[in-house]
Amino acid sequence: MPDTSSLSSLIEALRRLPGVGAKSAARMAFHLMQHDREGAVLLARSLEGAARAVKHCQRCHTFTESDICNTCLDTNRDASQLCVVETPADQAAMERTGAYKGLYFVLMGKISPLDGVGPKEIGIERLLARVAEPQVREVILATNFTAEGEATAHILAHMLKSRGIQVTRLSRGVPIGSELEYVDLGTIAHALEDRR
Amino acid sequence: MPDTSSLSSLIEALRRLPGVGAKSAARMAFHLMQHDREGAVLLARSLEGAARAVKHCQRCHTFTESDICNTCLDTNRDASQLCVVETPADQAAMERTGAYKGLYFVLMGKISPLDGVGPKEIGIERLLARVAEPQVREVILATNFTAEGEATAHILAHMLKSRGIQVTRLSRGVPIGSELEYVDLGTIAHALEDRR
Repeated sequence: MPDTSSLSSLIEALRRLPGVGAKSAARMAFHLMQHDREGAVLLARSLEGAARAVKHCQRCHTFTESDICNTCLDTNRDASQLCVVETPADQAAMERTGAYKGLYFVLMGKISPLDGVGPKEIGIERLLARVAEPQVREVILATNFTAEGEATAHILAHMLKSRGIQVTRLSRGVPIGSELEYVDLGTIAHALEDRR
Repeated sequence: MPDTSSLSSLIEALRRLPGVGAKSAARMAFHLMQHDREGAVLLARSLEGAARAVKHCQRCHTFTESDICNTCLDTNRDASQLCVVETPADQAAMERTGAYKGLYFVLMGKISPLDGVGPKEIGIERLLARVAEPQVREVILATNFTAEGEATAHILAHMLKSRGIQVTRLSRGVPIGSELEYVDLGTIAHALEDRR
């Protein structure tokens, strides 16, 4: 791009977004400057607003703008169940099912030894304090079914069970609507093992 | 995502970036809020700075922060040649070759009848006024070799030639470093036709 330092700065700043490389950043900057300056200003204000207002719920650690999030404050929810998820997006997916009425604990990450993220870094102390509250009867581990998500679930299960807490895990199995022929073999093997 | 209106606004605003859908926008917002608030604030400031400072060069219409861009002001450049490109990114690519020492005219778009973009919308009047200046001897059409870029070149060539201006087009041909076996047939056919 030509001699505009503010445009170069914008392209540099856009590259901090995950999945955005040099060419995408230049394309985004060009689009905003040429076709959507209003969008650029709106995005700037949204970024500033979110950076200022968004904090973590003191109970479940999800994103919220209050001290305690609406889900944790909802007295209609079943306080005996605590579902552990990796991110607010995973929590949102659980909510969209409409099949869960308990509370959450959001790790805001996953255990990943290669990245130096251990139980301490994902707030295991806060989770242990939370599950120590007397109303919690069951902890449902809903971390992702990836290598790191499975490892996280494994480690958390070990630590929670050793404190006498009932721990369950989302079942592995064949996704609804799929044909066995097209399902990966590991999934079929797990579905066979966990048959009911 | 949970009950944070500023986070929802941020996700909505990120979707205005080209190529960013709902899931990418949520992932970007999550990343910025959880891991890079400094980046969020930096991006906000860059967006505001660029939206305020970036304007169009009064001569070549590229992005600049002055009235006339540095390229147009450079008296060492050959004012007898005017290269017409679609975008500042294309101009930057031409500059990186180091093979062109003339001036530019940046269309900031391309003729695209299906999108209602005709010669008028890409500033044909400004281009005609620019090439009417006596020092311009040759207009080099360097629009892209896509259907719309070719159509743009074709229409511009027609309008410029009818005013007695010498018009050339970047040559079509086989890219440097490629093997004929892997080059598409249309390109080989054009390279044969334009052989020299």
